[in-house]
Amino acid sequence: KLKHEIKDSRELIERLAARAKLDPLSEEFSQHLDKNDKLSHLREEFSIPKSSEVTLNGVVSLNPNEPSVYFCGNSLGLMPKRARILVNQELDVWAKSGVNGHFTHPHNRPWVSIDDTVVEKMAEVVGAKPIEIAVMNTLTSNLHLIMASFYTPKKHRNKILIEAKAFPSDQYAVESQIKFHGYDPATTLIKVNPPPGEYIINLNDILNIIEKEGSSIALVLFSGVHYYSGQFFKMKKITAAAKKKGCIVGFDLSHAAGNVVLKLHKWNVDFAVWCSYKYLNSGPGGIAGIFIHEKHAHDFNRPRFAGWWGSDRRSRFQMDKPFNPIPGAGGFQVSNPSVLNTISLLASLDVFAQTSMVQLRAKSILLTGYLDYLLDKQLNGLGYKNITPRDPHQRGCQISLMIDEDKLEKVINGLNSYGVVVDERTPDCIRVAPNPMYNSFSDVFRFVKALKIIMGNLGFKFETKK
Amino acid sequence: KLKHEIKDSRELIERLAARAKLDPLSEEFSQHLDKNDKLSHLREEFSIPKSSEVTLNGVVSLNPNEPSVYFCGNSLGLMPKRARILVNQELDVWAKSGVNGHFTHPHNRPWVSIDDTVVEKMAEVVGAKPIEIAVMNTLTSNLHLIMASFYTPKKHRNKILIEAKAFPSDQYAVESQIKFHGYDPATTLIKVNPPPGEYIINLNDILNIIEKEGSSIALVLFSGVHYYSGQFFKMKKITAAAKKKGCIVGFDLSHAAGNVVLKLHKWNVDFAVWCSYKYLNSGPGGIAGIFIHEKHAHDFNRPRFAGWWGSDRRSRFQMDKPFNPIPGAGGFQVSNPSVLNTISLLASLDVFAQTSMVQLRAKSILLTGYLDYLLDKQLNGLGYKNITPRDPHQRGCQISLMIDEDKLEKVINGLNSYGVVVDERTPDCIRVAPNPMYNSFSDVFRFVKALKIIMGNLGFKFETKK
Ligand SMILES: Cc1ncc(COP(=O)(O)O)c(C=O)c1O
Ligand SMILES: Cc1ncc(COP(=O)(O)O)c(C=O)c1O
Repeated sequence: KLKHEIKDSRELIERLAARAKLDPLSEEFSQHLDKNDKLSHLREEFSIPKSSEVTLNGVVSLNPNEPSVYFCGNSLGLMPKRARILVNQELDVWAKSGVNGHFTHPHNRPWVSIDDTVVEKMAEVVGAKPIEIAVMNTLTSNLHLIMASFYTPKKHRNKILIEAKAFPSDQYAVESQIKFHGYDPATTLIKVNPPPGEYIINLNDILNIIEKEGSSIALVLFSGVHYYSGQFFKMKKITAAAKKKGCIVGFDLSHAAGNVVLKLHKWNVDFAVWCSYKYLNSGPGGIAGIFIHEKHAHDFNRPRFAGWWGSDRRSRFQMDKPFNPIPGAGGFQVSNPSVLNTISLLASLDVFAQTSMVQLRAKSILLTGYLDYLLDKQLNGLGYKNITPRDPHQRGCQISLMIDEDKLEKVINGLNSYGVVVDERTPDCIRVAPNPMYNSFSDVFRFVKALKIIMGNLGFKFETKK
Repeated sequence: KLKHEIKDSRELIERLAARAKLDPLSEEFSQHLDKNDKLSHLREEFSIPKSSEVTLNGVVSLNPNEPSVYFCGNSLGLMPKRARILVNQELDVWAKSGVNGHFTHPHNRPWVSIDDTVVEKMAEVVGAKPIEIAVMNTLTSNLHLIMASFYTPKKHRNKILIEAKAFPSDQYAVESQIKFHGYDPATTLIKVNPPPGEYIINLNDILNIIEKEGSSIALVLFSGVHYYSGQFFKMKKITAAAKKKGCIVGFDLSHAAGNVVLKLHKWNVDFAVWCSYKYLNSGPGGIAGIFIHEKHAHDFNRPRFAGWWGSDRRSRFQMDKPFNPIPGAGGFQVSNPSVLNTISLLASLDVFAQTSMVQLRAKSILLTGYLDYLLDKQLNGLGYKNITPRDPHQRGCQISLMIDEDKLEKVINGLNSYGVVVDERTPDCIRVAPNPMYNSFSDVFRFVKALKIIMGNLGFKFETKK
């Protein structure tokens, strides 16, 4: 059904509506989709804010007790109810056992190996083997620690290739790493641009640069899913092309982990980093993940910023042993990890473990496809411009809408009064991310209905396209 | 009363007992000291595990409901009750507001500036100005990030000076940094040893090495308080000597922050790092602190591993701005910090704010002095050897006792059955750390009484020294 040939998921919506003998624009159809959603029970696992709880300016245009339409999981994922339980369990252990919690734990999660509770589940979500995964610190810190090992510029191979308009933190990180090694970002950092005036970067442009400049590129560092445009890059093809040229390939998966199906191991990615507070729902500033491909697991020749938590577990508490790195990603850990953050991530990964990324992604394609369809039909492209790829295989769940600068504030406030939370990127963009984990087709229906009213109030006149 | 001239706090105990007309070895005297302890109310702020909750092998030699004697705050500080309240408040905000918690917060702690809640209080504890402090990541990660800026070896100045037997993670960190820059730790890392067979490093030996080798030393990196021996190094003198030679001076304050009075700014320390889960009671793997001296606040010429959280706050969310470092320690932040960890640290710093390091330290000198006194008098040095300096100004609250290897396990198990938690360092050491924040003089009395019974059972025969 959700075949690879589908390049425009709007087709799919019409097919499904026809099969159900329903008007694809009707509220009934959204309810039909919810009824047939095999993952709808997962919503119960999350705390969904009420409309009244998310409206910021006191104006509520609907029943304040109605749940909000939370389309901002690309910025901060909602709280799994389980997080409260697990976090409080850890506080109990701390209160009752103090330091003993490191070794004796009533829930079998001794803190000394607390990361063991999440590694396998995390690996599952990103398509990795457990030996390739560690959780530690936060994203940008990890990017630096890993670049210390994997960005080792040489005279004739020192460049870094990234997408244009990468997230600022990544830009700052790579520029500072380049300077650290004595090179000039102006000549050493290559950015792949989208065509002028556009937002989507052509795969061919990426591959051409790799083909042409690959031998001077030390590191190809791309987003998995671009935070702004929502473009899901062809990670497998980019990796293959760059590996052919002998480059190291790393990805920032902040917007990809828990959003799209990843096969990091199979795709032969060298390393990846991601935060866990977006689609992985671990809470603000949650503990971050790293992936180091198994092929590097036993390579101890690279430089590496070492710490005791990356050293052989058996001798970790023997104080006169030299650094003896754990094979794999674990060997890149430096410090003992935060228990509260790790456990909060576990709460979310436990929900992921109830399903699979393949199932989530199947729902996601439909859910975002439905959003795309309704926007197109109901708003006729008036008042906004969808800059995200229409091809479901080139995007995750997020759709980014450009809005006239002078209308952005009104649109945001309007949506807010309808209990809708989207991400605002001043001066002219909203990012709308229906999360298959906890969002419903009715959420999408409500969002488009609200947006249409707001745009109507702003003077746009719509005809329903058929 | 607690004069600087006191080189052996045992004197002080006898003076106080004489004044109270009590036998310094009596239980009554311990109660007298508790009654006169102006900080005793702070104990109420913490969750003190019961004896039955900390005994691991089922043997309880006393009322299981009695509070434990928790002398392990040097490993993991106890939980401030306030931590549970604050953490649950943040979970509530997450549950009810989702991403809005970053900007609108019912308790005026918007997540976007959550670190603001702790910076001033943290600065107070370590004797710094707020501009010199940031909280981020974990200790060893921070050490690496800061060494990237402050360990910049040159041909004729590339060495690192540390104390012998520094904590392994610090050793791994400096060795890996040295290798990273292409030098050989065997020749580039200088370790200051204690005299043969001893544990305390002579200040003069440190100063002599700095005097002789200073011009080739890039970085002097010492503990504030040594994790094993408990020695409180003369930070001011070490810093002054090293600065005179043009070295950068950094400290690992894991065992010093919240334990001893620090004046990082005044002493002219260049940088410091510490964890917060020991004397700062922030919970396992809590968020770590960094200090960067104000004199470096506006120096943007050093290399630095940059991230968006260290960039000017006003432009943080403007996506096309170049890195514009925040002056001071804040500019070394890379990622948005963990809210749960920051708030858990705040809970503890709120307790610190009820007193001062000077007051805590005054109690601490008395409390550890009392421990030292009772051990000496009651156990006559039989069965253990105290390797920590007797001079209260050369130690924090911790006393480290060497125990015969074949008796260590029995001593630990014995103490455990009396509800005493101390830190075990196999093969032959226990570290005993009465924390002035939540430990009482009665705790000390109970500990020594239990230890005497255990040692007695192991065949030692004591006479009470008068
Ligand atoms: C003196 C010292 N340095 C460093 C560390 C390592 O800390 P982390 O695991 O937070 O990096 C510790 C941990 O106990 C320590 O005691
Ligand atoms: C794509 C991307 N990279 C990096 C970051 C920075 O993450 P952190 O603050 O956790 O380092 C973000 C944060 O939103 C992001 O979206």
